[in-house]
Amino acid sequence: MGGDHGPSVTVPAAVSFLAAEAGANLILVGKSDAIQAELQKLRAVDHPRLSVVNASEVVTMDDPLEVALRRKKDSSMRVAINLVKGGRAQACVSAGNTGALMAVSRYVLKTLPGVDRPAICTILPNQKDGPTYMLDLGANVDCEPQHLHQFALMGSALVSAMEGKAKPTVGLLNIGEEDIKGNDLVKRTAQLLRLDHERGILNFYGNVEGNDIFEGTTDIVVCDGFVGNVVLKASEGVGRFVKNALTTEFRRNPLNMLGALIARGAITAFSRRMNPSRYNGASLLGLRGLVFKSHGGENAYGYEFAIRRAYEAVHHDVLSRISKSIAELMPQPTPASQGLEAMPQPQLTENKTA
Amino acid sequence: MGGDHGPSVTVPAAVSFLAAEAGANLILVGKSDAIQAELQKLRAVDHPRLSVVNASEVVTMDDPLEVALRRKKDSSMRVAINLVKGGRAQACVSAGNTGALMAVSRYVLKTLPGVDRPAICTILPNQKDGPTYMLDLGANVDCEPQHLHQFALMGSALVSAMEGKAKPTVGLLNIGEEDIKGNDLVKRTAQLLRLDHERGILNFYGNVEGNDIFEGTTDIVVCDGFVGNVVLKASEGVGRFVKNALTTEFRRNPLNMLGALIARGAITAFSRRMNPSRYNGASLLGLRGLVFKSHGGENAYGYEFAIRRAYEAVHHDVLSRISKSIAELMPQPTPASQGLEAMPQPQLTENKTA
Repeated sequence: MGGDHGPSVTVPAAVSFLAAEAGANLILVGKSDAIQAELQKLRAVDHPRLSVVNASEVVTMDDPLEVALRRKKDSSMRVAINLVKGGRAQACVSAGNTGALMAVSRYVLKTLPGVDRPAICTILPNQKDGPTYMLDLGANVDCEPQHLHQFALMGSALVSAMEGKAKPTVGLLNIGEEDIKGNDLVKRTAQLLRLDHERGILNFYGNVEGNDIFEGTTDIVVCDGFVGNVVLKASEGVGRFVKNALTTEFRRNPLNMLGALIARGAITAFSRRMNPSRYNGASLLGLRGLVFKSHGGENAYGYEFAIRRAYEAVHHDVLSRISKSIAELMPQPTPASQGLEAMPQPQLTENKTA
Repeated sequence: MGGDHGPSVTVPAAVSFLAAEAGANLILVGKSDAIQAELQKLRAVDHPRLSVVNASEVVTMDDPLEVALRRKKDSSMRVAINLVKGGRAQACVSAGNTGALMAVSRYVLKTLPGVDRPAICTILPNQKDGPTYMLDLGANVDCEPQHLHQFALMGSALVSAMEGKAKPTVGLLNIGEEDIKGNDLVKRTAQLLRLDHERGILNFYGNVEGNDIFEGTTDIVVCDGFVGNVVLKASEGVGRFVKNALTTEFRRNPLNMLGALIARGAITAFSRRMNPSRYNGASLLGLRGLVFKSHGGENAYGYEFAIRRAYEAVHHDVLSRISKSIAELMPQPTPASQGLEAMPQPQLTENKTA
């Protein structure tokens, strides 16, 4: 029911995905009437690998977390996550309110042992033609070093599972490569990551800068949710800006239009590669269940990528592999985070005037 | 002497700029021999509007601030800033070590009354075909609300002077538009900016997101230096990624190459518009003198834009207008910052687990 378009996007995406993946089964959760109406349009009411579970309520984009958590107990979001909790579904995909999805997921599924805070992880394209995994993208806006440390461990486990890399590289997003660069949070985080690197637990590359995300310098880029969210949206903004500028120039006169027509193969391939829908589907990482978030504004083409992301995570047994990695990498309690929590919390608010 | 290329870039840029601006005079500061050699190549040794001031030392990219500040007292950077201090130059342009440039500028020139910390401000292109001014871009990685508040006031004064807008709009970079969104720093900053808006001092638009920078939602985007630096570099990274992808596709086969040839007008115009060199030249804002920073890797074409930026700032009388605005907008001591400083410093490090 979620996102800007609801069943008019999610249902066609689901039907299309089932046509592409013969091994997949989907449960559509939401208001039966609305879902059935969409299925009828697509002549898919009796699809053998598709079922519908009714949920009478919908969490809106404006609903406070309180409403999503305590009041709308029969929301499509809640019912879908309950299906994961109960083992009837292996993953949940939603285009709904991100904050509510995280809160309900966390409340219903709980976090994995050793994980204080789940994080949102997505993939971004890079110049090496591979994915860069980046987290957190907005679930945690005020972070402590131990949280970024956990994000690094979770990201590492995810990439191991999804990409088959035994020791994926982890970069810490900073404003320079040198150890002395950065704010208090990243400097303290780097110490924890270096310790893990020395112990052979993490493949910590060191600090990376904003451009490294798209250069593919490391497999994983770790940052707090404020920075990650702003960077992600700014990158999308640059992408749209570039696309519009290119379209304007090609339409400026008949000669340019002719050139564009002749080179339409290049332009189509380029547009396809730059299409953010292809990277749709962020993982809510650190929960005892698989939950994926689609961008709210996506069309059916983009929403299908989010379903695919979830399907592949199930296929690669991501949940048990992450749980196992986290248990191995982050024995309870970890010496690092124990040490940090026992220490008096240093103030980030010191007034540096030098 | 600064940047990756030194006089081989800065001297040709200076000579080219003088040819374009009949009213400009430039002083080249650095090792005379190296500068004269470049001038000879360009047959510009006797240029009537160009003089050379010798400086025996050079601040390198790796020099610690301590070295730039205390030891290399005859560096090109220091000597050039001294010329501004002494009134012999109206602005300084450097492609050197940013941290050193800021530290030396601050030490020699001092900050304007009412400004705790200078900030780095640059312009970025937006979809409205205008500039978005963004600050801070890396001078201040750990900020307090009163610092972001001062950045907003300085940015507002700068845009008033440069763009002739009486009440330029200020956006606070955040992860959502709603007041409840964001980390502790931006929430507290928003309170200060809203107060100024109510008093008619600032035209505070409210929160903006990463994509708004390139959509041109506001004239000014304010953020801390960590976030600003990462966003700027990520945006540059997306730009390069897109450019490479486009080049690859157009070169993939003869038909695409033919189309590109026919539409070369569009491609040239597009490349020109996307060229980051055109936005080169960041302002070190909040000092008692005009100092501009060029990207270290720029060529002569890009460096000339930084000189132009400085020239236009002088032309628009930016320094006295900013000083005046700051004095008006931020009477000493401001009620807001006084109140904040009198309050016990709240910890940013609280351990939220909800």
